Amino acid sequence: MFRNMYDTDVTVWSPEGRLLQVEYAMESVKQGSACIALRSDTHSVIGALKRSVSELSSHQQKILEIDDHLGIGIAGLTADARTLAKWMRNECLNHKYVYGTALPSGRLVNDLADRHQRTTQTYVRRPYGVGLLVASFDKNGPHVYQTCPSGNVYECYASAIGARSQSGRTYLEKHYESFPGCDRDELIMHALKALVGCVSGDGELTSENGSVAVVGKNEKFTLIEGEALQPYLDRLELESGNNGGENVEEEQGGDAMET
Amino acid sequence: MFRNMYDTDVTVWSPEGRLLQVEYAMESVKQGSACIALRSDTHSVIGALKRSVSELSSHQQKILEIDDHLGIGIAGLTADARTLAKWMRNECLNHKYVYGTALPSGRLVNDLADRHQRTTQTYVRRPYGVGLLVASFDKNGPHVYQTCPSGNVYECYASAIGARSQSGRTYLEKHYESFPGCDRDELIMHALKALVGCVSGDGELTSENGSVAVVGKNEKFTLIEGEALQPYLDRLELESGNNGGENVEEEQGGDAMET
Amino acid sequence: MFRNMYDTDVTVWSPEGRLLQVEYAMESVKQGSACIALRSDTHSVIGALKRSVSELSSHQQKILEIDDHLGIGIAGLTADARTLAKWMRNECLNHKYVYGTALPSGRLVNDLADRHQRTTQTYVRRPYGVGLLVASFDKNGPHVYQTCPSGNVYECYASAIGARSQSGRTYLEKHYESFPGCDRDELIMHALKALVGCVSGDGELTSENGSVAVVGKNEKFTLIEGEALQPYLDRLELESGNNGGENVEEEQGGDAMET
Amino acid sequence: MFRNMYDTDVTVWSPEGRLLQVEYAMESVKQGSACIALRSDTHSVIGALKRSVSELSSHQQKILEIDDHLGIGIAGLTADARTLAKWMRNECLNHKYVYGTALPSGRLVNDLADRHQRTTQTYVRRPYGVGLLVASFDKNGPHVYQTCPSGNVYECYASAIGARSQSGRTYLEKHYESFPGCDRDELIMHALKALVGCVSGDGELTSENGSVAVVGKNEKFTLIEGEALQPYLDRLELESGNNGGENVEEEQGGDAMET
Amino acid sequence: MFRNMYDTDVTVWSPEGRLLQVEYAMESVKQGSACIALRSDTHSVIGALKRSVSELSSHQQKILEIDDHLGIGIAGLTADARTLAKWMRNECLNHKYVYGTALPSGRLVNDLADRHQRTTQTYVRRPYGVGLLVASFDKNGPHVYQTCPSGNVYECYASAIGARSQSGRTYLEKHYESFPGCDRDELIMHALKALVGCVSGDGELTSENGSVAVVGKNEKFTLIEGEALQPYLDRLELESGNNGGENVEEEQGGDAMET
Amino acid sequence: MFRNMYDTDVTVWSPEGRLLQVEYAMESVKQGSACIALRSDTHSVIGALKRSVSELSSHQQKILEIDDHLGIGIAGLTADARTLAKWMRNECLNHKYVYGTALPSGRLVNDLADRHQRTTQTYVRRPYGVGLLVASFDKNGPHVYQTCPSGNVYECYASAIGARSQSGRTYLEKHYESFPGCDRDELIMHALKALVGCVSGDGELTSENGSVAVVGKNEKFTLIEGEALQPYLDRLELESGNNGGENVEEEQGGDAMET
Amino acid sequence: MFRNMYDTDVTVWSPEGRLLQVEYAMESVKQGSACIALRSDTHSVIGALKRSVSELSSHQQKILEIDDHLGIGIAGLTADARTLAKWMRNECLNHKYVYGTALPSGRLVNDLADRHQRTTQTYVRRPYGVGLLVASFDKNGPHVYQTCPSGNVYECYASAIGARSQSGRTYLEKHYESFPGCDRDELIMHALKALVGCVSGDGELTSENGSVAVVGKNEKFTLIEGEALQPYLDRLELESGNNGGENVEEEQGGDAMET
Repeated sequence: MFRNMYDTDVTVWSPEGRLLQVEYAMESVKQGSACIALRSDTHSVIGALKRSVSELSSHQQKILEIDDHLGIGIAGLTADARTLAKWMRNECLNHKYVYGTALPSGRLVNDLADRHQRTTQTYVRRPYGVGLLVASFDKNGPHVYQTCPSGNVYECYASAIGARSQSGRTYLEKHYESFPGCDRDELIMHALKALVGCVSGDGELTSENGSVAVVGKNEKFTLIEGEALQPYLDRLELESGNNGGENVEEEQGGDAMET
Repeated sequence: MFRNMYDTDVTVWSPEGRLLQVEYAMESVKQGSACIALRSDTHSVIGALKRSVSELSSHQQKILEIDDHLGIGIAGLTADARTLAKWMRNECLNHKYVYGTALPSGRLVNDLADRHQRTTQTYVRRPYGVGLLVASFDKNGPHVYQTCPSGNVYECYASAIGARSQSGRTYLEKHYESFPGCDRDELIMHALKALVGCVSGDGELTSENGSVAVVGKNEKFTLIEGEALQPYLDRLELESGNNGGENVEEEQGGDAMET
Repeated sequence: MFRNMYDTDVTVWSPEGRLLQVEYAMESVKQGSACIALRSDTHSVIGALKRSVSELSSHQQKILEIDDHLGIGIAGLTADARTLAKWMRNECLNHKYVYGTALPSGRLVNDLADRHQRTTQTYVRRPYGVGLLVASFDKNGPHVYQTCPSGNVYECYASAIGARSQSGRTYLEKHYESFPGCDRDELIMHALKALVGCVSGDGELTSENGSVAVVGKNEKFTLIEGEALQPYLDRLELESGNNGGENVEEEQGGDAMET
Repeated sequence: MFRNMYDTDVTVWSPEGRLLQVEYAMESVKQGSACIALRSDTHSVIGALKRSVSELSSHQQKILEIDDHLGIGIAGLTADARTLAKWMRNECLNHKYVYGTALPSGRLVNDLADRHQRTTQTYVRRPYGVGLLVASFDKNGPHVYQTCPSGNVYECYASAIGARSQSGRTYLEKHYESFPGCDRDELIMHALKALVGCVSGDGELTSENGSVAVVGKNEKFTLIEGEALQPYLDRLELESGNNGGENVEEEQGGDAMET
Repeated sequence: MFRNMYDTDVTVWSPEGRLLQVEYAMESVKQGSACIALRSDTHSVIGALKRSVSELSSHQQKILEIDDHLGIGIAGLTADARTLAKWMRNECLNHKYVYGTALPSGRLVNDLADRHQRTTQTYVRRPYGVGLLVASFDKNGPHVYQTCPSGNVYECYASAIGARSQSGRTYLEKHYESFPGCDRDELIMHALKALVGCVSGDGELTSENGSVAVVGKNEKFTLIEGEALQPYLDRLELESGNNGGENVEEEQGGDAMET
Repeated sequence: MFRNMYDTDVTVWSPEGRLLQVEYAMESVKQGSACIALRSDTHSVIGALKRSVSELSSHQQKILEIDDHLGIGIAGLTADARTLAKWMRNECLNHKYVYGTALPSGRLVNDLADRHQRTTQTYVRRPYGVGLLVASFDKNGPHVYQTCPSGNVYECYASAIGARSQSGRTYLEKHYESFPGCDRDELIMHALKALVGCVSGDGELTSENGSVAVVGKNEKFTLIEGEALQPYLDRLELESGNNGGENVEEEQGGDAMET
Repeated sequence: MFRNMYDTDVTVWSPEGRLLQVEYAMESVKQGSACIALRSDTHSVIGALKRSVSELSSHQQKILEIDDHLGIGIAGLTADARTLAKWMRNECLNHKYVYGTALPSGRLVNDLADRHQRTTQTYVRRPYGVGLLVASFDKNGPHVYQTCPSGNVYECYASAIGARSQSGRTYLEKHYESFPGCDRDELIMHALKALVGCVSGDGELTSENGSVAVVGKNEKFTLIEGEALQPYLDRLELESGNNGGENVEEEQGGDAMET
């Protein structure tokens, strides 16, 4: 009960030195549908599960292109993610306009994290309710970053966020040491295999709810969805039979605000 | 009881990572009278039920023209919708003035969603209490979008919002696969049939409380009301006899603030 | 008890999706003395009951001229109404100065409604506590509009607001189909007959507490009060004898702040 | 108990549609010492009871000259009244400087009321805690106005405000029909007779605690106090003997902040 | 208990029409050490008791020169008084610079009162916690004014404020009718006699804790302290023997913040 | 319990006319380590006890030079003191730049006190949590001032603030009458003797935790610490043996934020 | 329970003169992983433990280069530290650009402390939740500073902050007297030995979770990590065997927001 006294204002410290509102915002990431990212020595790949509010609407876009060399996968509030994506696109455009080259992904991700941090230190705005996985290929090679509502940012070999992402993370941890040598399609297959475990109990990964994106050495950021995704799914069915079923205890909070 | 501690300020996260004030605002959409939208390969159609505060006043306008190629149907607070419509009209005018062409509907709808999102991240304003169905025909063909107070936006084949809209949604889900090939008048008939189920128990769809709008390949956004609507209603009576009566459990909150 | 948690701030949604402070402001309209408006094909007429705080002061003005072609009747807080009237007069003057013509009433009324809406979406100001009946005659003919603290606006054939207005509304609903063909004086007589029912139980409509205004095809906005009103009251006494006494259950809240 | 939830903020409506903070501010007027005003066809007169905080200080001024043609009597917080008087003097000076004529009292009083209204619609300032009786003689003849903290303003034949003012009001209501024909001195005598009833139980009206001001056809605003008031008081003693003693139940709240 | 709901914000009215925060600020004046002022036909005199926080510090200055013709005695928060004195000195300097003459004390005191009033009508600042006695000699002769945290100002024959000031006030009330004819030194003796009663029970008036200031016809504002005060104290001892000991029930709140 | 209702906002008066937040801020001064100051006819001296957060860090500076002629000793929050010292240095520099002479210490101290006062009258900032002892030698000779969070300032013969300062104050009160005739080194010895009593029970005054500063007729502000202090400590040991041990009941709060 | 009344706003003093929100912010430093710093006569060294959120991400950077001559080690919220580092880099760049020389570390650290202090005196922002150890080598030789959320800054011989830092501090206190004469590599070995004790019970110091940085006489700020660190760790294993195991009672909060 007392704990609640410190958890309604983002600028108030709890006696234990925690910012509870920031921690609550991080909960919203766990309610978005799963998103995973991984990289080899030559490519970065994002995989995501799309939700649909009803049969009548198309599935919500979960992977957004930012620039030729960079895209994001999201888990949490879609509206917040769209706002951030808009800002990122502008940053990339401005850099290209001024310097003639692509904005290095490390720099973009750091500025993004500062943008998050500012919302955690003033009472005027709330922290963003969305986590991003950033996949890029720039002059320093392929990168995967994970950002949090707290303003933290991690460079990763691979990562998984969102509902039921624990299953995907387990897959990635088991295989990540083999990723560096993978070629493009092998990496995509790993992404799909990690994603399979994140589908809720009675569902399955289809060309409708799944989506993958790849960026790499000689390939601009490319979204693979629908029919283009089917061949990979077919191959997945062939290969696996032994990979599914790792259902995890997390609940899927099918709320329309998260994706 | 504890839950209530996080639900009076839009910038406060609940411990489960939810923004309860945004969810409450979405409730106001459910209290407006029903509104449906659908599209074929050539046309987009909006249908809406109009409420009247008394016999003495005309029915409240539920479908608003924004530009030649785009209009909206609304459910929720009329005053909020009017404010948004005003802004949308300005955006269309500015684009036409600067570029000489119609503003693509996808872009308008994205900017609109960002406008919603901003009200959910600052304590200065409340989230808008209105949901919109946007129907348009631009260079990419016909579109139907649904927007929410949360700042989410969905592109749809068809959609229904507002009081008793579940019945209309059920109709749309049953028939949406046949919409693409419909011609203009068939699409209007589908709109009316979906709308019939949304009328409250003892009422019926008339040329007074019903209204339809169409936009399409060679047709500017056109409102069909009153006498112009009668022929379609006559045809509806002929065809149906078997379509009504799907009353749903939602209550109609005849509050003067919503439409 | 819980309901009260959401009703002290205009920017807070209740869990049912309502803005309770806006609804409370609408209560203040019900406490002002009654005001009615109606229109024929050629004229618009406002009728209102004036209250007097004591024998020593003149009755409070309830009908205000805005421009030659437009006036308002008010119910609710007089001070709020006076502020709005001042703003409306300025709008009319500016339009006349810039364009050389009278400001169309529909446009003025829409801007007025937006002005109301803004007070419902920010915590800086409270919603206005007054309802207006706008009567005008412009290039599109005669109009009657009703505005609410919520920012809603309705175009009407006729309308009645304020304390005991239910009785007047009943009269108007019974006869409004005959209004279009009425000439100026018949319309005024209808206004007075509707007003009679709104007088509190033991009072009666006199040249002191009643007031009427008319605007029409060849007539600027004209206030008819005191001696000028007497002939109509005499005619009313002749005609009626059968129209009074429809007292309704609403209480008259003789508070000095409302009119 | 519940009522109290709505009465600490001027921008919060109570569920009954009332602004309780504004009503509380109006209470402060009732705690100031009494002030009355009345007019004939040629003159306006203010009468007031002055309080003294101690023997050592002079009595507090209750009637303030604003301009040659206009003055005010006050009941409530003196400091608030002084601030308003300063503003009124500036308005009069500016008008005289720009137009060369005296500012019409109706216009000044309307602007003053708007100034009051603004304090009732924003949370930044509190409503003024003072009521004014304005007496003037301008090109439209003599006027008496009463203003309230709510922003309401009434034109009156006569009026009485402040502690024990009910007694004075009763006198005024009994005789106001004879005021129009009164000459200057008769009107002053009526003012004093109305004032006599407002003196607290064991006190009496003297040249020290009474004060009168007159403005009229050929007379600039003139304050009559001390020795100049004595002849009128002598005449009052002669005439009356039968007029006093109408003590009313209101308590005199001899608080140093009110006058 | 309920009363407390209205007493923590200066912009909130209590249901009885009082501003409790302003009344609380007036309590702080009662906790400062006593200060008295009085005037004859030719001179104004201030007398004050100085407190010392410890043996090691000099006594706190209680009488401050503002200009050649004007000075103040203070009771309440010293820091607030110093801020106000600074502002008053600037006003006097500016007036002298612009007009070449001394600022009339009535005008200065009115502006000072408005400065106080403003702090009572906005929530941004608190009311000042200090009362001033202003003694001056200008073209209209000698003046004594008393100001309050409420923004009230009184012109007085004489006045006493601060802890135990009731005793001094009693002395002044007994003798004030003889003050007008007093010469300079007689007036100073009256000041000291009034001050003697304000010394706390076991103390006595000395050249260390007492201070007097005089301003008059041919005398600039002059502070009389320490050795210069001794002759008057000697004379006091000679004359009196019968004047002391009128201890009053007020407690001396020897708090370091007040003087 | 009720008392607590008025003690969380610096702009709120308690019913007794006190500003409790200001009083709380003054408590923080009592928690800093002791600081004393005294003056002769030719010199001003500051003595202070330095705390060290651990063996690893140097002792915290407690005496700060502001200008050649002026320095401060602090007790309370170090971070607040540093901010104030920065401001004081700027004031001195500006004065020297504009007028070519040293800023008189009385003027600087008054401006500093006003700076404190402002934080006690607005809710935007908290009162500073630090007390200063200012020692200076300017054209008016040597000065010692004490400032408080309340905005009060006292000129003193000598003063002691901070934890266990009562003991030092007792010493100063016993000997202050002999200070005026002291030469530089005698005054420093008095400072050290006063400081000895302020050391916590089991500690002792060393060249590490003690520090002294002197400013005087022909001597710029000079800090005497470490080895330079040792000779004085040696002399102290010789002279005393009878001066220590006056431990007082105050607790040393050894908190890292105070010094 | 009462204590809680003063601990939710950084501008509110507790009755004991404490700022509890600032103290809570200092708790967050204790939850970051350990960081230590020390200096010889020629070099400054930082050592830190890096945490990793999962196997998939690289370890979080704990030591940040600011300029050639200066770097920081952090404990607490990473996002806050990154914001401060960005500001420090700018300060250094600006100084170099304007003056052509490196910014003296003492000046940078003082400005940084003022930046912290400001967040403790206004309600707009929260105090930063991070402690820094600054290591530099400038024209005054090597320096180590420690900063706190309170705005305090200490110059140290050595220091240790963060979770389990007590163990490292104990090591430093035991050996700090031998540091001045150490050469570069000896100093690094001391850093590693101090760090060993801060590793949580069942972990050990590896080239993955450990990191060291050095700056000195002829050496720019250099980070030693991974393979470059291994030789030192090997030497550590050789030398020690007797140094580990000093586990302290502090809990490691392994929260993703701290590092």
